[in-house]
Amino acid sequence: MARINRNYLKLPGSYLFSTIARKVREYGEAHPDADIIRLGIGDVTQPLAPAVIKALHAAVDEMGTAEGFRGYAPDLGYEFLRSVIAEKDFKARGCDISADEIFVSDGAKSDCGNIQEIFGTNNRIAVCDPVYPVYVDSNVMAGRTGEYDSNTERFADVIYMPCLEENGFVPELPKELPDLIYLCFPNNPTGAVITKSRLQEWVDYARKNDAVILYDAAYEAFIDDASAGSEDPVPHSIYECEGAKDCAIEFRSFSKTAGFTGLRLGYTVVPKELMTGGEKLWPLWARRHGTKFNGAPYIVQRAGEAVYGEEGRAQIREQIAYYKENARIILEGLKKAGYEVSGGIHAPYIWLKTPDEMTSWDFFDLLLDRYNIVGTPGSGFGPHGEHYFRLTAFGSRGNTIRAVERISK
Amino acid sequence: MARINRNYLKLPGSYLFSTIARKVREYGEAHPDADIIRLGIGDVTQPLAPAVIKALHAAVDEMGTAEGFRGYAPDLGYEFLRSVIAEKDFKARGCDISADEIFVSDGAKSDCGNIQEIFGTNNRIAVCDPVYPVYVDSNVMAGRTGEYDSNTERFADVIYMPCLEENGFVPELPKELPDLIYLCFPNNPTGAVITKSRLQEWVDYARKNDAVILYDAAYEAFIDDASAGSEDPVPHSIYECEGAKDCAIEFRSFSKTAGFTGLRLGYTVVPKELMTGGEKLWPLWARRHGTKFNGAPYIVQRAGEAVYGEEGRAQIREQIAYYKENARIILEGLKKAGYEVSGGIHAPYIWLKTPDEMTSWDFFDLLLDRYNIVGTPGSGFGPHGEHYFRLTAFGSRGNTIRAVERISK
Repeated sequence: MARINRNYLKLPGSYLFSTIARKVREYGEAHPDADIIRLGIGDVTQPLAPAVIKALHAAVDEMGTAEGFRGYAPDLGYEFLRSVIAEKDFKARGCDISADEIFVSDGAKSDCGNIQEIFGTNNRIAVCDPVYPVYVDSNVMAGRTGEYDSNTERFADVIYMPCLEENGFVPELPKELPDLIYLCFPNNPTGAVITKSRLQEWVDYARKNDAVILYDAAYEAFIDDASAGSEDPVPHSIYECEGAKDCAIEFRSFSKTAGFTGLRLGYTVVPKELMTGGEKLWPLWARRHGTKFNGAPYIVQRAGEAVYGEEGRAQIREQIAYYKENARIILEGLKKAGYEVSGGIHAPYIWLKTPDEMTSWDFFDLLLDRYNIVGTPGSGFGPHGEHYFRLTAFGSRGNTIRAVERISK
Repeated sequence: MARINRNYLKLPGSYLFSTIARKVREYGEAHPDADIIRLGIGDVTQPLAPAVIKALHAAVDEMGTAEGFRGYAPDLGYEFLRSVIAEKDFKARGCDISADEIFVSDGAKSDCGNIQEIFGTNNRIAVCDPVYPVYVDSNVMAGRTGEYDSNTERFADVIYMPCLEENGFVPELPKELPDLIYLCFPNNPTGAVITKSRLQEWVDYARKNDAVILYDAAYEAFIDDASAGSEDPVPHSIYECEGAKDCAIEFRSFSKTAGFTGLRLGYTVVPKELMTGGEKLWPLWARRHGTKFNGAPYIVQRAGEAVYGEEGRAQIREQIAYYKENARIILEGLKKAGYEVSGGIHAPYIWLKTPDEMTSWDFFDLLLDRYNIVGTPGSGFGPHGEHYFRLTAFGSRGNTIRAVERISK
């Protein structure tokens, strides 16, 4: 008799963003005239940059000709994309990452969810609290987390690293030793960042304890360039830290960088020398990639290449500036209205303390009901997210301004 | 200390098609003037149909405007695509499958590889021998297969179902009871088909024993329409069999149907009522889909929709006819040259017995070396594939004719 994977039954509720989507859909059906502003899910709203559109059209045309047609992509992704990534995202920042350490994929969510597979189920994971749910949920499914306790809202075998106002939403090095450490900076959901010297402490800690850091840098494009000149800058990549190639895997996304949420493109860096317990990780991830995935579409990889061209870079810098201005508007507006807010400077997320000790979900309902604004309840990201609320800077300018006006009332 | 998933180390050699790609690359580098004809990997060569190209351009244009831009797709895929699939691929063939039982994905390879995750590691799988490697390898990675014995070329805990000349390359119902049964018809690699009455036996067997059939129908578009009128037709879908919704999941691909190998689109059908051990499978796959995947690109889903339009359907029927004519040329040509061949009628694969009891890899080397033709060694698909060889009908007409001429010498 076929038996299901019972680990799935340990997952409390449905996937956070699916729940939100359902609640908003139901509200919209009940109130068809409501002018709902969505600052909840981290989805962009600006159209694709003209250089990206141009590259897509050109690649589509190629696919319509016998000479230009491309079938299955190479396992790791097209060389034209991997080499420009290695050059512009890493070598240009002094990180010694080569094209064959880049694995092109259909997005950072897939990679973040799938990476745990190459590790045994006997590893102990450490995650921030609050945290992007995919890190935890994918480990629950694999049976790496133990049982869920609905009182503490925690899984028995996970090491939670509280991210609080007191520590500037950057976790301390855990006392209990983890095997796999998930870090995400600029952070989702809090919008907090880590400086290079603090990240170096994590790298040193991981090397000392033979742990592997799974570093999600999906939001690095939002880091202010001005930071680079400071004494302790905000790093774009963990490989800016010494020794990181011995202990870290990094995830990158085109979704937030270049508005590819609907195009699907990301990549993962697995350094060739990265080893744990005497085994290299590169061949394992290559095997996983080759066995259960068949490449990102050629046309989308060409679109990704256009992001690095002169024209594309300029256009995308403008888009990011647009979203960063939204973040500033929300941050300033809410501060003025008396809210306690953080994040939103090197990140597209604003982390807001709910007023009057309201629970995150009560605040969600209030915002949706009274102001027709959709945000994300902080408690959906973990117990230390309770009494917090995430707003995103990815709306249109008009909606962002109107949302702040509504909430300020 | 981080520990790897040691199940990966049980995998013998590298992924079959990666090995072939490496061998061909090395040969090409050593013989830069060689005119290599690739009939190995099942990759199509015809350009995308004009209707598909048109739909892609239109969708790309949408993505460049504020009104038309689409971010994250709905979890299961866009309604416009799921509903046309349900209508044209199922309801039109008398199968009662609804749009919300369709999960759109980036391809059948991903889905075939990932589906095992929703089942416990304590399930026993049954696979055909020879078999598409992804079914076995993904289960090895999950720890469901036991150790590999290099003498027998078998994993200890897998039930192998020999597909031989004697049984027309259609397996017998296994004596040992499996929990999960992988079937693929029209078959990769043998090109064999199963009739509706024989498939009904499998459905009855699975229902009786509470097993789940994982049915890969990636090649259904190659089934001759003429078969529909016969007494015992070749089914396009397992849901043409009575009771299949209680015991089967089906995988479909746009790769071989519409030449999407480089665009990436497929879908999986999980009937809402499908249960095992008292648990429904639909919510588990929905959770997996929502947690570790973020949808196929909007533009590619629009391209998929175009496949079902009047124009698209006609153009794609022509493409399939083109490949089927290639299959006929290979089949007839090799027969005439004295080879024992099968498949190639309702399928794009021709299954060829190697001459003089040559091993499959020796024949691979001979073909590459002497005739500059790339095929796939049958033994790469399992021990009962030894002394066989797979050729595909996906080449261009010119290359197909030249390949047959070369081999016929």
